[in-house]
Parts: sequence; structure tokens; C-alpha cells
Amino acid sequence: MNEKDKNSLENGTGLGRRRFINSAALAGMSLGALACTDKSSTAVAPAASGAAPATHTGGAGSAAHLKPGELDTYYGLWSGGHTGDMRVLGLPSGREITRIPCFVPDALVGWGHTNESKKIMGTKADGSLRYSVADTHHTHASYKDGNYDGRYAWINDKINSRIARIRLDYFVCDKITELPNVQGFHGIFPDKADPVDPKINYTTRVFCGGEFSTPLPNIGSDDASTYRSLFTCVDAESMEVRWQVLIDGNCDLTATSYDGKLAATNQYNTEMGAKYEDMMSAERDACLFFNIARIEEAVKAGKFKTYGDSKVPVVDGTHAANKDAKTALTAYVSVPKNPHGVNASPDAKYFICAGKLSPTGTIIELAKVLDYFDGKLDSADKAIVAEVELGLGPLHTAFDGRGNAYTTLFLDSQVVKWNLEAAIKFHAGDKSAKYVVDRIDVQYQPGHLNASQSETRAADGKYLAVGCKFSKDRFLPVGPLHPENEQLIDISGDKMVLMADHPVRGEPHDFIIFKRELLSPKQVYNLDDFPNAIKDPKDSGVFRKGNKVEVKMTSQAPAFSLRDFKVKKGDIVTLTLTNLDKIEDLTHGFAIPKHNVNFIVNPQETASVTFVADKPGVYWCYCTHFCHALHLEMRTRMIVEA
Amino acid sequence: MNEKDKNSLENGTGLGRRRFINSAALAGMSLGALACTDKSSTAVAPAASGAAPATHTGGAGSAAHLKPGELDTYYGLWSGGHTGDMRVLGLPSGREITRIPCFVPDALVGWGHTNESKKIMGTKADGSLRYSVADTHHTHASYKDGNYDGRYAWINDKINSRIARIRLDYFVCDKITELPNVQGFHGIFPDKADPVDPKINYTTRVFCGGEFSTPLPNIGSDDASTYRSLFTCVDAESMEVRWQVLIDGNCDLTATSYDGKLAATNQYNTEMGAKYEDMMSAERDACLFFNIARIEEAVKAGKFKTYGDSKVPVVDGTHAANKDAKTALTAYVSVPKNPHGVNASPDAKYFICAGKLSPTGTIIELAKVLDYFDGKLDSADKAIVAEVELGLGPLHTAFDGRGNAYTTLFLDSQVVKWNLEAAIKFHAGDKSAKYVVDRIDVQYQPGHLNASQSETRAADGKYLAVGCKFSKDRFLPVGPLHPENEQLIDISGDKMVLMADHPVRGEPHDFIIFKRELLSPKQVYNLDDFPNAIKDPKDSGVFRKGNKVEVKMTSQAPAFSLRDFKVKKGDIVTLTLTNLDKIEDLTHGFAIPKHNVNFIVNPQETASVTFVADKPGVYWCYCTHFCHALHLEMRTRMIVEA
Repeated sequence: MNEKDKNSLENGTGLGRRRFINSAALAGMSLGALACTDKSSTAVAPAASGAAPATHTGGAGSAAHLKPGELDTYYGLWSGGHTGDMRVLGLPSGREITRIPCFVPDALVGWGHTNESKKIMGTKADGSLRYSVADTHHTHASYKDGNYDGRYAWINDKINSRIARIRLDYFVCDKITELPNVQGFHGIFPDKADPVDPKINYTTRVFCGGEFSTPLPNIGSDDASTYRSLFTCVDAESMEVRWQVLIDGNCDLTATSYDGKLAATNQYNTEMGAKYEDMMSAERDACLFFNIARIEEAVKAGKFKTYGDSKVPVVDGTHAANKDAKTALTAYVSVPKNPHGVNASPDAKYFICAGKLSPTGTIIELAKVLDYFDGKLDSADKAIVAEVELGLGPLHTAFDGRGNAYTTLFLDSQVVKWNLEAAIKFHAGDKSAKYVVDRIDVQYQPGHLNASQSETRAADGKYLAVGCKFSKDRFLPVGPLHPENEQLIDISGDKMVLMADHPVRGEPHDFIIFKRELLSPKQVYNLDDFPNAIKDPKDSGVFRKGNKVEVKMTSQAPAFSLRDFKVKKGDIVTLTLTNLDKIEDLTHGFAIPKHNVNFIVNPQETASVTFVADKPGVYWCYCTHFCHALHLEMRTRMIVEA
Repeated sequence: MNEKDKNSLENGTGLGRRRFINSAALAGMSLGALACTDKSSTAVAPAASGAAPATHTGGAGSAAHLKPGELDTYYGLWSGGHTGDMRVLGLPSGREITRIPCFVPDALVGWGHTNESKKIMGTKADGSLRYSVADTHHTHASYKDGNYDGRYAWINDKINSRIARIRLDYFVCDKITELPNVQGFHGIFPDKADPVDPKINYTTRVFCGGEFSTPLPNIGSDDASTYRSLFTCVDAESMEVRWQVLIDGNCDLTATSYDGKLAATNQYNTEMGAKYEDMMSAERDACLFFNIARIEEAVKAGKFKTYGDSKVPVVDGTHAANKDAKTALTAYVSVPKNPHGVNASPDAKYFICAGKLSPTGTIIELAKVLDYFDGKLDSADKAIVAEVELGLGPLHTAFDGRGNAYTTLFLDSQVVKWNLEAAIKFHAGDKSAKYVVDRIDVQYQPGHLNASQSETRAADGKYLAVGCKFSKDRFLPVGPLHPENEQLIDISGDKMVLMADHPVRGEPHDFIIFKRELLSPKQVYNLDDFPNAIKDPKDSGVFRKGNKVEVKMTSQAPAFSLRDFKVKKGDIVTLTLTNLDKIEDLTHGFAIPKHNVNFIVNPQETASVTFVADKPGVYWCYCTHFCHALHLEMRTRMIVEA
């Protein structure tokens, strides 16, 4: 046993034997399979150290169960994975309160069916949706003074490189932007301040990491070594793409500093490999830092290219173009083997990367990264202030605001709680510094985790949610497709305490948790927000121009303003419905049988659909959203004349 | 105060003043609005009687909170309303474990995207989906010996008159049938036995109620009084429509007797009105009984018509054609004002209808209905053995197997527990019979409710779930669209005890709850179940016939069998993927950027998609469903040559 291994055993981390995982071994064994063959929870490999504590469960569990009518104290915004939506949870109960459709149609609200939502989603020349699948991974909200300000949240679509913005007043998506020349748009993070103007202490930019490299422009080349990735900046208000950075390697997740000066992305494929064996051949990859002020100066100075049809300025962030730190736009800090995740500590000092295929967590001090850009360090790697062993398959890190970090260990099926300052001391040579504070088994194979308020200056160390990718035996069996398991852990004490298992439909990745006081949602729309609103039932009617017919209607429980209406076969009908009911929760729906129409109008909302009335007959349009004792009787007839 | 009112006050029901709700008053007032103006729970009107107990909450609440890893003891199958899916809940936790897509595309699994699912859903001539909206209301499962047998569940789509079957081994939809000449297909119920053959003690038919009346065949006529509704029988195995019955009035919900002889539907619009004022003009509507054996004899004897393009035999169940009870196919039992709901008691003796616009519950004795069909009663109404006052807006009824019924009171925002035999005694003249056992406030405006095992002979009186249509102040605010509130009540004691509030996405209607032992789901598919399975990675490749290209691939974590593949611009590509991983929970996804492709393959499953490769370039296809430590690295390249 070498000295380092011995020390780490003495330190209680007990992971000396694990070191970096050998590439050859990994290629030969199916880790997913290994992780999943055994059904009993005891089969999950504990930490190698005999000192690893068993799962704690206790009295805290009941805190997750609210009494009937009791409100949750935290909101959670969860990405919906390839369900393509954003989900809103209440915590600590773990209850899903709503889903916000954005990239993918939603039959409940008529998202992707109404003209208003189709315009946001984007359509092809024939009026059909451009995309109806998506893969959302990361969601983050707008900041002010280092905390959420309740304006917006953003979410990514990895499949089609789209970013959606959610308004947090009405909980609706209002803009979607497709990033040019990017494939596998994965990480996303808003900035927290302007790098130059101290008055702008709130989010004005959103950074987006492009994970897959392609030819630029994308022609069908075989030679993956010529492919490149882009890091993208989107304007938080206009949702237009401001600029992009050409880089070496790829982007994965994204983080931003509290002072607005730095953004970063972890890189797991600095090798630019096209196959997994190649992607894991190097022992170290990187955390790539972007100097935002310099990038924007370069753009202003015209030092950029454009690619293909895109007009977006692309500056050069490759190694070759950034050798002089004093003028560099980028700094590549090396991080062990295929890191997955980069997170900013709430004290604004550090970014943490974890190794995935190395058992280590790396602490990078941001002041030192700025020193590097100022020419005060001869290597960006000197910004690393700790690199300590945590366990097998470390991925993402959350914080409690008390100096501790919580990192998921995918392969160990654990969360490890570790102290940042102790880790820094240990790394600096003080082998008595016990940086591992606690470990807890989770069920099973955790990916993302996040703590309440973790990614703000107001991290409060109360709850930790852990997104476990496999649930196996934790819920009643429901066929081959298992739910995932979002576990809730009480982190208010020294020991982590498992509170509850919550099954979720696949597959949430990242999420944020924040105090309910930070939002002030509205329950009733303003009629004036809809240019096509029908403000008076008297304005209802059927208005024809050739075969284009406008049907204008209002709803007030228990009736629609038109009790029946007539159109002709072949008419292109645009039906607009304004809900004149003003009372909270009094939503109406509108369905037309056989014409593939259904959508809802919330109180004081207006929505419209366009369809071809191609089948003569009588069609009972009816309210699909329960509204009133006479809901079943709330109907109108569309008569399509032959 | 008249004698009846006085008696009911003494009885503790205290609803004498309420009687039938006056049509004129109803037309003038917005009940939905009234029910929703006040935010505080205390504003919900209590029962008029001073004796109405307050909401009970207590120790039972904690029973809804399972410890981490503890399994639920009951499955719940919930309809998803106009979300268009079926949901699977665990109870008592109320956790949603999975959603089963059927009528509406689901981006997570690729439902509506894979060729296999599109075939089940139905497509237009151009290959696009026929429908992508739906409105599911009722779900019921197949029976054997009066209890669920774990084979199938069925669910309706009211918008497009479709019925879907769910296999309860794999929790997937395998068949969808569109009912001919039906609009507003609402109620659904499987039979529990054959009416003639005692050996067939299991489900072979599913009955479907058509709510909206239309011209037959459907030409665009104004005159609603000429419209007609059909009651439909679907074969449980083939999913083909066996026969239909032409009726007077409309169908709403459906129930079946345990002996297989009778099915019934409640009718809220015997007036055949086209506007809500007309639909509520009569003081009594009906519960319409179908004599299944006689109907099938009539079909066999050729005594039927067909309508339009449909070949389905339609027998005549109208009043005019069924005046002689001894040969009648149907019996119309009158029920007070716009009843909503008909439910079969677990002792197999009674069907219960509630009045909605009358405060009454009506008990119909099935033996007496059979007596009517045998000519032993001079009026079908003589099968009514009780008609008692319950509260305002009574809708649906569940049972505890101990002789008690539980009925939702929409307007009172309560559930009333009442004893059937006591109600029968009271109706027969014994005014000392106290049939109302308990009341509990619910939050708010309950629609459907159901008890554990309620609609089986094994009703166990443990849990009652109540689908409250409005949640208002019960959850954190999430914008104008509120969740609904599925409340769980412990009914194991004399008093009902509220256990938990569960928010759900709109809008579940009906649901069933049954013991977990009744299902034996499978977690891994059988390769042989898929005719297009690629059983050996060696069979992978690109196979071209002109511009039609077949791409065959397998998945085994962490790689796809083709590490890249080439097609040409304009190719019509059918990509087939077999997941050769055999381990439970090891699902893979497959996304192709910019080609609107994403779907999953569960262990040993095969799925295929067809798309046009219309954009030259490199496209990183990647695994979208977390599978393995090297999940991010699990990719293949599609190179589209110009």
C-alpha cells in the first residue's frame, strides 16, 4: 500500500484501492448490469471502508408527510427528461403539483395544438410541429443578488438543441430558441451578475453547453477528430443567441460564478473520441472556464467567425488560440477522468467537479482562476486547491451553506457528505483533516442531487433530494419500465437521514429546490394580455371570408356563448375561445369530436385552434375540464354542412 | 314543514328544504362559481343539519406515509382525463408509479412515434396519427369469480369514441377500437360473467355508453329531437364491436351485474335536449337496463339494423319497441333529475344511482328488475327499493362490503356514508331507520370516489379515494391551472378519517383500487414476442432496397451494435432496435437529433421507427434512458450523405 492509499484509509475514506478505474476493466464489464442484477437492497456494494455507516432512517421521515391541507414549504423545479416537460414539486412532501409543457405536446392543455403554443414551439411549412420529442436535463432559474428572483426558469432539450424559458408568474413556457450548430445541448446555467456592470446584479445571460462535436458546418464527415463543439450564450430577455465559443473537447454541465466573471463547463471527452473506449482513454479531462468579459470584448471587436447559415458570432476558445493567459478567453483546468458535473459553492469561492471514472472530487478556487487570467499563475491547474477521494462513480455535488458538500456516488449507490475546507487542508498535506463527514446508502445508482437553496447564496442545508436512476424493488411492480426514485434526505443534522422514496416518471435529471416565499404566482390571467380576446359574449359569432371561417366564442359556466354554430365542409376554421370566468381554478376545456381538437382556457385566458372541417355531420363540442355542477351539460354543436 | 321534510330532519339527514333543485334557480346561478369564490376551507357549506360532523383527521393519516422502501398494499388504476393516459398509483401512499400511454402520444416511451405503437393508435393515409388528443374518464379491469383477474383493464376516450385495452402483465396498451356512430363515449364496464353459460365466470364483453345523441347516420341536422344514442358491446378478447342498442335518451355511466344477466346506464338527458336548460327540464330521468341474453338472441335472429358504413348489428331498445316486458330488451327505471353515476353493490343485489340535481340516492334491486323482465312486475319502477335524501349534488357511490355506501356530494363538498338496508327500511316506512352513518368534508367539489375492492365481491372497506375537482388552496400555487385533489380516507372504522391530500394533473375521473396480490406483472419481455427482433448483434447492419433502408441494431450497455451507420439524403429509413440487455430496469433510449426520433426499448424489447433522412450531416444518436455509468458515452453516429 502506498502512502497516499494508507492516508486515505486512515482518513476514513477507505478508497485507496479504487484509484482511477482502469479503462480496460470498464470496457469489459457492464456496470449497469452489475449494478442491477441483485434485487435486495443489501446487495448494493457498500463503501469499501468497514467504517461506512448503514442507511439512516428515523423520525425525520414523518416530516415528509404533510397533514391534509398543510402546504409544502419549498418548490422544486424538476426536469422531465425525455418526457420533455418541466415538473413542479412541493417539498418535503414530494408531491408533483403541476407539469409545464414546453418542448413536447401536452394533450391536457392543448400545448402543441393551439395556435398560440404552436407559434412558441415552432412549425414546419405545412403548419405541423417541427419537433414532438425532447430530452430535458437541466433547469435553473433567474437570479438577483445571488438568490432566485422568481422571474424565469430555463430548461434544455438535448435532442434538438433547444432552450425553453418558463415564466414563473403563470408557470408557462413563453419562448423556445434552437441553438445553431450545436448537437447534444446538455448543461444550462444563467449568469448571476454582469461581469462588468455592478448595477446588473441579476441574470441577463444563459449559458449552454454543447456535448456532441460535429463538423462545422455539419457535413457528413467520418473523421470525428475534425469535429468541434460550441459553448453558447443566450440573452435571458430576448432569448436570442448572443455569441458562441469554439472549444477543444466537449461541454457537459455548466456553472457560473456569483460575480458574473466566469462560466465553466466540465469536459468528459477531451479526447474527441467517437466511441466510448476512446472517450475514456485519457486519465484526466477538464473543467473549461470562460472569461465572459473578454469574450464579449472580442465579439465587440469583431474577432469572430460565423458558421453555415448562422449569423451568431463564434469566438475562438481553443487551446491553440488561448496560450497567453493575459489575453485568453478560456482556461482549461484538468480534472480526473470523464467528470460529470460542475457546481458552484454557495460561498461563491469554489467550483467542484467529480470524476465519474475516478473516485475523486476536485475543488477549483475561482479567485485563482481569475489570477490565472491575470497572468499571476503559470498554469490553470494551480487553481485546483483539493482533489480528494470520495467513493466510486462520483457525479454531482450540492451544498448546505455550512461548508459541506454532498456528492452522489453512482457506483457505490451512496451520497457522501464532505467538508470543503477539511478537504483543502487534507490536499495541502494535513492528513489529519477528516473531510468525509458522513455517508448514506441510496436506492439505487444516484445521478443528480440537489439541496434546498443549494445553488444560491442562501443555501439553507435543510433538505437534499437525490435522483436515483434505478428503483428496482422500491415500488410496486408496473411492468418492464420502472419509475425512477427521487429520495428525500434530511441534512439539517450531522447525520443524513433518509425521509422518503418518491417514484417519478422517467427521467428527471437535474432540479432545483427553493423557498416558497420566492415565488408569487398569479391565478387569473389578464384579458388584455391576449390580442385575440373576445371580451364580450356579444362579439361571438361565425365570420366567413371565402372558405376561411373565424368562430369567436366565450365560456361562462355552464355554457359557451354560441349554443351551436355552422360551417361548411372544407372550411378552414379558426376557433377562438375566451374564458370570461374570473374565479380561480375555474378552467374550461373545449373538445371537438373527430377533429383532433382539445384545449383548455384558464380564467380570463384566450386560446385558438385552426382545423379543417372535413367531415359533414353534427359534432358535440363539450367542456373537457370539470367546471361546474352542469359541466356534463356544457356543450355546443358544430354542424358541418355537406 | 311537510311530514317528509320533518322525518328527514329527525332522521338526521336534514335535507328536507333542499328537495329537487329548481331548474330556474340553477339556470340563473353559477354553481361552479359559487363553489369556488371563497378560499378558506371553512367557507365550504356544511350539511344543513346541525348534526353534521366536522372533518375528521387523526392518527390514521400517518398510515398513508410509507417508510422508505416500504411497498404499497394496493394498486390504483386511474383515468388520466384529457391527459389521455392511464395512471398507476400505489395506495395508501398515493404515489404515481407509472403512466400507461394509450390514446395520446408519449414522448418518454416513443408512443405514437414507433411503428408498433402507431399501428395500435391508428394512422391516416399519410402515416400521421389519426388522433393525438383524448379524454379518458373510466377504467375498469377484467373479472373472474367476481374479483379482478389481472388480465386486462379498459379505458375510454370520450372525444373520439375509442376504447383501449391495457395488458396488466406488461402494463401496455395492445388494442384500440373506435366505436361506430357514437359520440361522447363515456361510461365503460366489463361484464363479470356470461348471462347464459355458467362456465364463463369471467369477463368476455365490455359495455360502452354513448352520451351524445346524433343523427344516424350522422348528417348535419339541426333538429336535436331526431338524434339518437347507442349503447355498445365490445368483445373483450378480439376488441371488435359485437352489437349496439338504439335507445331513447342518452347513456352516461355503466354498470354490470355479477350474474352477467344485466347491464345498465344512467341517463341524465331523457329529454333529448340540446341545451343545458332543456337537459334539466324533467324532474326524473332514468337508469336504463339491458337484458344481455335477449339482446344477443335478437342479434342472432337477425332482428337488427345497421347504420351508415358500419356493419355492426343495432337492435332496437327504444321505449316504443319494448312495451312488452316479457320480450323487452330494455327496461327504463326512472331516477330523479340528471343522475350521474350507477354503481353495483358488492353483495350483487343492488344498483345505486344518485340524482346530481336531486339530493337523493336511488336503490334498484336487481332481482326485481329480472322480475320485471319476467313479467312479474307491472312497472320497472317497482324495482326501486329506496329513494332517500343524501345531500346536495350526489354523484357516485362506493361500498365497503359491510353494507354501507359512500356517495360524493358535489355541492356540499362532502362524502356521505349511508347504510343500504337502513335506507331500504326507511323508504319502506320505518322512519326510525337512521341510514346516514357519517359525513366528512372533502376539499373541494368531489366527483368520482372509489373504495378498495369496492366494485368486486371482495370489497374490503379499508380505503376510500375521492377525486376532488377543485383544489384551490390545498397546494402551493402553480399559476392558473390548479391540480385536482385526490383525497384518501380511512373507512375501516365507524367514522371516516381523512388521511392525505394528493395533487394530480387534470383530470382523473374514475379509478379502481385493488389488492396488490391480484397482479403478477412481468419485468422483462420475451424476445420471441417481437417478430422483428434482432436476436444477435451479428445480424445488425444497413440493408438497402432502392431508397428504402433498413437499419438493424441491438443495444447492450454501454454500446449500440452499430458504432456508426450511413444513409443517403432522401432515404426512407426504418430503424429497428432490440434491447439485448436482460436485466430488470435496464431500459435504453434511442434519439436522433433533428429527425424527431426518440423511443425506448425495455429489457428484451424490440421497437422500430420510420423517418426520412432529409438533412445531410452527422447526427449523434444517443441513449436517452439512463442505463449505465457510461450512459453519456453510449452513442452511435448516423451519417447522412448528401
